[in-house]
Amino acid sequence: MRKPNKLKVIPLGGLGEVGKNITAIEYKEDIILIDCGMTFPEDEMLGIDVVIPDITYILKNKEKIRAIVLTHGHEDHIGALPYVLNKINIPIYGTKLTLGLVETKLKEHKLDNVNMNIVKHGETIKLGVFDVEFIKTGHSIPDSAALAIHTPIGVVVHTGDFKIDYTPIDGDVIDLNRFAELGNQGVLLLMSDSTNAERPGYTMSERTVGNTFREIFLNHKHRILVATFASNVHRIQQIIHASEENSRKVVLSGRSMINTIGVALELGYLHMKEGTLIDINDMNKYPSNEITIITTGSQGEPMSALSRIASGEHKKVQIQPEDLVIISATPIPGNEKTVSRVINNLVEKGTEVIFESLADVHVSGHACQEELKLMQTLVKPKYFIPVHGEFRHLKKHAEIAETLGTPPENIFILSNGEIMEFTKDTAEIGGNVQSGNILVDGLGVGDVGNIVLRDRKHLSEDGLIVVVVTISKKEGTILAGPDIISRGFVYVRESEDLMEEARTVVRAVLEDCEKKKITDWATLKSNIRDTLRNHLYGKIKRNPMILPIIMEV
Amino acid sequence: MRKPNKLKVIPLGGLGEVGKNITAIEYKEDIILIDCGMTFPEDEMLGIDVVIPDITYILKNKEKIRAIVLTHGHEDHIGALPYVLNKINIPIYGTKLTLGLVETKLKEHKLDNVNMNIVKHGETIKLGVFDVEFIKTGHSIPDSAALAIHTPIGVVVHTGDFKIDYTPIDGDVIDLNRFAELGNQGVLLLMSDSTNAERPGYTMSERTVGNTFREIFLNHKHRILVATFASNVHRIQQIIHASEENSRKVVLSGRSMINTIGVALELGYLHMKEGTLIDINDMNKYPSNEITIITTGSQGEPMSALSRIASGEHKKVQIQPEDLVIISATPIPGNEKTVSRVINNLVEKGTEVIFESLADVHVSGHACQEELKLMQTLVKPKYFIPVHGEFRHLKKHAEIAETLGTPPENIFILSNGEIMEFTKDTAEIGGNVQSGNILVDGLGVGDVGNIVLRDRKHLSEDGLIVVVVTISKKEGTILAGPDIISRGFVYVRESEDLMEEARTVVRAVLEDCEKKKITDWATLKSNIRDTLRNHLYGKIKRNPMILPIIMEV
Repeated sequence: MRKPNKLKVIPLGGLGEVGKNITAIEYKEDIILIDCGMTFPEDEMLGIDVVIPDITYILKNKEKIRAIVLTHGHEDHIGALPYVLNKINIPIYGTKLTLGLVETKLKEHKLDNVNMNIVKHGETIKLGVFDVEFIKTGHSIPDSAALAIHTPIGVVVHTGDFKIDYTPIDGDVIDLNRFAELGNQGVLLLMSDSTNAERPGYTMSERTVGNTFREIFLNHKHRILVATFASNVHRIQQIIHASEENSRKVVLSGRSMINTIGVALELGYLHMKEGTLIDINDMNKYPSNEITIITTGSQGEPMSALSRIASGEHKKVQIQPEDLVIISATPIPGNEKTVSRVINNLVEKGTEVIFESLADVHVSGHACQEELKLMQTLVKPKYFIPVHGEFRHLKKHAEIAETLGTPPENIFILSNGEIMEFTKDTAEIGGNVQSGNILVDGLGVGDVGNIVLRDRKHLSEDGLIVVVVTISKKEGTILAGPDIISRGFVYVRESEDLMEEARTVVRAVLEDCEKKKITDWATLKSNIRDTLRNHLYGKIKRNPMILPIIMEV
Repeated sequence: MRKPNKLKVIPLGGLGEVGKNITAIEYKEDIILIDCGMTFPEDEMLGIDVVIPDITYILKNKEKIRAIVLTHGHEDHIGALPYVLNKINIPIYGTKLTLGLVETKLKEHKLDNVNMNIVKHGETIKLGVFDVEFIKTGHSIPDSAALAIHTPIGVVVHTGDFKIDYTPIDGDVIDLNRFAELGNQGVLLLMSDSTNAERPGYTMSERTVGNTFREIFLNHKHRILVATFASNVHRIQQIIHASEENSRKVVLSGRSMINTIGVALELGYLHMKEGTLIDINDMNKYPSNEITIITTGSQGEPMSALSRIASGEHKKVQIQPEDLVIISATPIPGNEKTVSRVINNLVEKGTEVIFESLADVHVSGHACQEELKLMQTLVKPKYFIPVHGEFRHLKKHAEIAETLGTPPENIFILSNGEIMEFTKDTAEIGGNVQSGNILVDGLGVGDVGNIVLRDRKHLSEDGLIVVVVTISKKEGTILAGPDIISRGFVYVRESEDLMEEARTVVRAVLEDCEKKKITDWATLKSNIRDTLRNHLYGKIKRNPMILPIIMEV
């Protein structure tokens, strides 16, 4: 039996990866969860919509779970909530905008009866044995919070995603003084955002982007389209400011843009003059120099508004050569090609496109090295766990902590599922709990696994050949077939010889088996498969999936 | 009939894309081809190995084709040669290293009897009506050439891929003076490399990378692995220099590295001391501070040497925590994630990894804006066609030419297949020839097209359901089945209910059709497909390919 007086910290997602953030904090009979995020599928997860964390451990300990505490409203921190809440009803705590966004999401999934509790920065909530304090931070979405979790063993500080912006758009600067106070009082453990740990220096203030916008908006005399993340409310605020200063109306395009701005406006996180926002259908009533369109699609997502605008498939927005398009985001690794395709489509239509490498139209939402050092220095934790990032980011963040004097034996680079156990004086890894990726495909959660993905990969590369034959139950003779049907393999019309040869090869196998009195279907099928596979590979160096089907009459 | 006295320039590949470079230059009864490259498949070209240009126009005019003239030995300039030469035997002209690399490639494809002719920089060859002059340039592979094609209408200058490096590793600097001379004498048309047209300033000299290597090699006291492009002979020369200065032996890993270095050494493009190069099997006879491994895999290609080393699957090289790995390349757009995976695997093993964002371990091989301006200024062409690049790069390059004074009506941004027609005083687009992508999959060239790819995509996303039923020819009754087999759809074991329901749905369709005396198989199949599709989409929001097969006995 494990000793009952240890504090356990168990990352169930977000370590060794970007996304899917969720961490359990456990002491005796109480568990709280920090965040509950999703991530996007890797390239090899063919056909998968989203990836959520394995929550077996949570389900097994459901009577202990007191709450899910959310640091902010990004998908990689709240996106798995509908799937988890569908299995187990847990109270949710978060700031106002975060919960506003959660509410929209839960509505889409037709989940109600969720116990949601708004917390303000500076407030502390009691959750079982834990006192959880929300501390104001800055990030690329408003209302972000770090958490100070006061436990019987000591204080755990979790930064959430953060950057240090001394001149934030909402004027409400990160509460560095509270981090300093906690540091002075003594912090057992710091868990800090590692996303930008490889980047030296400081992240620029969001305000610098506003200056660039202001200059661009002043000089362009036709329509301006800006693509950015719907959740980047401060960015959108600056686009609205620049528009209002230049007497432009603002049009929104893209479902998530309309939804998120709706929530942000309603809850008072976004400000605009009466009449600034107009309906997309009224756009043509205004001259082109009085229109700004804010759109989704900054990652070049093929179905997004900007992609459809660029390829001329958008019903309401037809791109003009005089338009100016600003892509106010950096491509997330893996999206470079889709973004480039959008840029090419726009440039081909004669439109000027401004993106990050041409001007300061984006800044990161995550702390760079000097900011990480400041956080470490203020909080002065006894132990340190770098969180949120691939292994390379965690490692670099660990090295930074070491250069600041944290003893290496007090720094832990964890994997998802590892149990960190703390007493007041000790810290050690005390085993593992189940963790991993659950793949969501359509309405199916977890029913697509390695075998299905392996088959999808095989099918995607070389296609499929189905061989069907009907055999007499009594005599074992062929009654119909063999028929050969292919998909994703070759143009059948141009490869009639190849297919006819394949039929001959299969017929020979069947006749041979008939002669040898082989009536075991498994053997028969594997003979067909092997012979046909070798034949095709020799002919065309391709290896389609071969599916022999035998019908018995 | 077209007037016979026009010079035609027809890009058959390389415009609006990066790769697959090939251009026809035609006058009356003579055609020469500049380069003959391949490109790598786009993400949506599932299962495709390489992409080559459509050469219908070449095959139709084969009696006119005098030669393929090569600018340098990169795959995007020589990679389609085996496929083209397999259809039509054309004499090849190029510099020594370029032809050395072509020879290796043709050997792999078992092509001999190819007429290959080595040309030196400064030499001019007569090809039909054309005099083709090879001009020394600089690029990330030695022995690169620009071409000055002296035609009856005027001089066409094609830069090939180039950069301006005043301190190249082989000491043999780009022949700017010849470009200047040509400019003074009058150039009709310039076709110039647009790859880096979006980048301001100058590309750094290759030598700067050598300085970084020297410093790193001096300070590291264990084994060093460097991943780079096999064709970047100058880079490899600098790695060898740094190794020799620090008494390190050099080991090669990766098939293309061994092949290319073999050719470069044999032809005198790479220099090393006797005994520097050792066999990978002798590596362990030396202490770790006396070993450098030069390896392929700088793009994180899953089967490459570096990827296998990083994941612990390489038979000869086991990574150690004390090793230092240098990735001396930039990820080509689309490869960021595979490179990152390799870095994570290495860092997890405790190995330090240096890559471009951490140090100056790579420079581009292509000219940036200031170099492009220099080329324009020297050559002073009457007409300008930007080549080698996506539309955005061509557009930017056209803008640069315009700022230097080329009248916009003399600048042509072409698409593949467009025919530019020149007289001494006029230039206009005179129609189109067939052009496009031919997909190579295994031994099949061009037998995979849109329908096959669409099927592969469908199969990759939602998998497949085969419905088989045997029906009596006479009575139309079901004799066997319906059997339902799925692949890439769901875990069958965990979804038995779903599959059993599907069977019931199909049986109902069959019985209904039997009742209605529907004996038309096409109708029967489409009834099965539609009903089952709707049923499954309603149940699980997935849309697998459904393949109904009816056997008649």
